[in-house]
Amino acid sequence: MLKLYWASNTIASATGIVLNEGNVHWEGIRVDFADGEQTKSPYLSINSKGRVPALVTPEGVLTETGAILEYLAATAVPGLVPTDPLHAARMREVMYYLASTMHINHAHKMRGSRWANDESSWADMKAKVPETMAASCAYIEDLIVGPFLFGADVTLADAWLYSTSCWLEGDGVDVAQFPKLGAFRDAMNSRPSVVAVREMGMIG
Amino acid sequence: MLKLYWASNTIASATGIVLNEGNVHWEGIRVDFADGEQTKSPYLSINSKGRVPALVTPEGVLTETGAILEYLAATAVPGLVPTDPLHAARMREVMYYLASTMHINHAHKMRGSRWANDESSWADMKAKVPETMAASCAYIEDLIVGPFLFGADVTLADAWLYSTSCWLEGDGVDVAQFPKLGAFRDAMNSRPSVVAVREMGMIG
Repeated sequence: MLKLYWASNTIASATGIVLNEGNVHWEGIRVDFADGEQTKSPYLSINSKGRVPALVTPEGVLTETGAILEYLAATAVPGLVPTDPLHAARMREVMYYLASTMHINHAHKMRGSRWANDESSWADMKAKVPETMAASCAYIEDLIVGPFLFGADVTLADAWLYSTSCWLEGDGVDVAQFPKLGAFRDAMNSRPSVVAVREMGMIG
Repeated sequence: MLKLYWASNTIASATGIVLNEGNVHWEGIRVDFADGEQTKSPYLSINSKGRVPALVTPEGVLTETGAILEYLAATAVPGLVPTDPLHAARMREVMYYLASTMHINHAHKMRGSRWANDESSWADMKAKVPETMAASCAYIEDLIVGPFLFGADVTLADAWLYSTSCWLEGDGVDVAQFPKLGAFRDAMNSRPSVVAVREMGMIG
């Protein structure tokens, strides 16, 4: 059985949603970030990077949300990657944007010590997060077809965007400024896959 | 014909290498970062994010290195994505690490204004780059099978890692500390795909 290491309100919920979309039988193992469990053994023997998610497969541990979601799409959860190469590329364009721009903007709120040593720098980074996250929302807003990112069909990118979008209020973004993104969240909230990850405490 | 917008010593060279690995007929269009061309029209009408690479395809403009490389693998450059789902996931695990961790570490040297407003914060970020990039090298070093990342066969991740690895001296990393990464670079340097991007000025 697949095992997913996760922590509350992290991007690990995107993997939970995809597993649920495929009705996969999986086990969640909670990592206590408040206690710094991700930075200590034994968790570091699961993922030396000290992050979540980590997916334990019969063939070994996989990390990085994008790699995990593509693996699930290829092995256990069909239908979440468009078959047309351009449409698949549009999906991955969003996935890489979320990974390398929007998630990074968010991370500067609490994880400034990754990139700077002075507390004044961390405070400076933290203060800018509402601005950078709003800019990311504006970029995403223009992409959303509705109800989901690319129309009626859910893709891997929808699960990822949903998880990211749950950070917005905490990051000081006025979501009312982005009505398509708000409607996207509402549409996702009604899916059983999302209800289930909320019930187990992955979000909220 | 595919057109690639690129700038010197950016991650755009990874796309150039993959295009060359497939002997694709393509045109490069240089964007002058020294003049801030990426932040002005008309370039912003190509890529509103103000970054490179951007690939102009017959079906529209694609951005984000990971999306572009996967698109090329699916349409024009066969053989660079492992057919086994786990091996493909291992490749993507590196690709997402490069996009969301190692490239981000590097970006804090010159692009601190993305995430903070004070010059003192930018200096603090810049000073930490040798440490964070060396940590990324240590992670990658443990993964390299040799001569390429996963052994004898080049994948999309090799092109990306090579482009990233060309930043190391400039980022204050002592590459001699990472002999497998150094040997990987040497192996890539002997490929005609890499020689060609160097000759056109994408690297160096």
